[in-house]
Amino acid sequence: MKYYAGVDIGGTNTKIGILDNHFNILAEQSIPTLSQQGARATFSRIWQTILDLLAQHQLSEAQLVGIGLGIPGPVVDQAIVKIAANFSWGNDFNAKQLMEEISHKNVVVENDVRAITLGEHLFGAGQGVENLIVVPIGTGIASGILLNGKVLSGSGGCAGEFGHIMVNEQGMKCGCGLTGCLETYTSAPGLVREAKKLLSAPEMDKQKCGEFFQRFSTDLDSLQAHHIFEYAKKGDHLALQVVDSFAKYLAYGLGVLINIFNPELIVLAGGVAKSADFIIEKVQKFLPHYALGVSLQNLQIKPSQLLDSAGVKGAAALVIK
Amino acid sequence: MKYYAGVDIGGTNTKIGILDNHFNILAEQSIPTLSQQGARATFSRIWQTILDLLAQHQLSEAQLVGIGLGIPGPVVDQAIVKIAANFSWGNDFNAKQLMEEISHKNVVVENDVRAITLGEHLFGAGQGVENLIVVPIGTGIASGILLNGKVLSGSGGCAGEFGHIMVNEQGMKCGCGLTGCLETYTSAPGLVREAKKLLSAPEMDKQKCGEFFQRFSTDLDSLQAHHIFEYAKKGDHLALQVVDSFAKYLAYGLGVLINIFNPELIVLAGGVAKSADFIIEKVQKFLPHYALGVSLQNLQIKPSQLLDSAGVKGAAALVIK
Repeated sequence: MKYYAGVDIGGTNTKIGILDNHFNILAEQSIPTLSQQGARATFSRIWQTILDLLAQHQLSEAQLVGIGLGIPGPVVDQAIVKIAANFSWGNDFNAKQLMEEISHKNVVVENDVRAITLGEHLFGAGQGVENLIVVPIGTGIASGILLNGKVLSGSGGCAGEFGHIMVNEQGMKCGCGLTGCLETYTSAPGLVREAKKLLSAPEMDKQKCGEFFQRFSTDLDSLQAHHIFEYAKKGDHLALQVVDSFAKYLAYGLGVLINIFNPELIVLAGGVAKSADFIIEKVQKFLPHYALGVSLQNLQIKPSQLLDSAGVKGAAALVIK
Repeated sequence: MKYYAGVDIGGTNTKIGILDNHFNILAEQSIPTLSQQGARATFSRIWQTILDLLAQHQLSEAQLVGIGLGIPGPVVDQAIVKIAANFSWGNDFNAKQLMEEISHKNVVVENDVRAITLGEHLFGAGQGVENLIVVPIGTGIASGILLNGKVLSGSGGCAGEFGHIMVNEQGMKCGCGLTGCLETYTSAPGLVREAKKLLSAPEMDKQKCGEFFQRFSTDLDSLQAHHIFEYAKKGDHLALQVVDSFAKYLAYGLGVLINIFNPELIVLAGGVAKSADFIIEKVQKFLPHYALGVSLQNLQIKPSQLLDSAGVKGAAALVIK
């Protein structure tokens, strides 16, 4: 049996998994990324963790065939991170070379969203579909675009950044430097911000408001995105208003992708995907305002199947395929 | 020497050209499409015109290797027109089969914008570039997307329709059925409409207005898109205002494509491409508001090289490649 490591490198933590070639996770561990100690230190700790996990499962180093690394930021040639936005590793950082030097294994590096997209295509909600778009929604929103079975990278490794479409010229400044980006509305922080705005609006009539208002209007700091969905699902009027606005912006963004790509399938992923069925129902209501009817005809929208293990499985998919 | 026919089928007229394999047009003719007479009648007249053009140039039927057909609308499998929006030929019309039956030649059918995109890639402004987007602007706006040397079709043949991104929720109804589409602003009719609005605004102070206002404010019906560019290039304040607004919307649309595709090159085509240098200069001013800096870094924007012969050359490219 052959085994593979899938590594999901995040700004704070790095998730490491050992998978067999049926895409089962045999072992998984999270370690702090500690990127400020330098790339070599981080990558060495990742490799050590892989060795530990193999040993714990009575697997030899020789049985490990390859390592897939998913990293945020623009990645080119499945090797080089052009801009290490979340790390202090400098630009044009050759992550493949360094990891191969440390591990003496075959290493494939890819942008994290594109890794997840490959994972969903090979082993998740997009099995058998050659033209699909995976849209992870969490602290931001992006898209992994699979065309004819291949994930789109763009000339500089930056393809898929539809979260930075401007949707409100007078909107707030986005982390990317632009203003009023889709992502400022269709992300977990965006949801929470809009909910807080409503919860603290002076004209809010307490009499008319339900449980959601009762619980959070005096405790704004504890509000998280999943609370909004929980209350909306129970029919809370105020929470529903927030979700409706979110769904409208999301439908706008998906409409852009649909008009441009005419895909067979869109997969909603990321933290928000736990409420994907609920969101999809809402989004479907708004989509006919933003997407061409002819491109909606045979389109499916589904929740992610990889969910919490998307990062590790997506990274492993880079080498398992 | 081998020869090829490129056929650009339009709602009103059909342009037919005979090309050699260096992409030179040896002969060209325009005939009325007369689609209401039925597809067989139109295709038979096209074939007869091809035979006439060959005879006029002392070429034999045997020297003609293939026929490329560019047709508006969603085309799948380089054969079938899913929705014959501009014609009365019904849906799922197998244009390839019919033309092969009539001509006994190899026939390749493609959406007209995708044919032009292939043409610019093989013989025009996009030679040697594997990731590019061709944006024809005329009575509408669309995009032909070339990725790794292949033109994107979409699952139902509808890819590239970025002209139907909503840019103004309170905007006018678009021909596609949606409201406030980009195309209602970034097209020749959109330009003319916005100019007429300004020309007939009651608050317009004649004293402050220049030649453009003098010539067209009392003769709105004669105004065409090219006039607006002509006067803007001469520095006319009012015409510049119209072009600026057009360029801003166009920059928004191109920004969406740039964020999503991270392309190496965008080629502006269509009737409006005659003023492409002027438009590109204006668009560059607005692009940094709508596109990620990292994706603008190595992006080039160029005018079409095929220009008026784009339709015929693009169609021929389908079989010459």
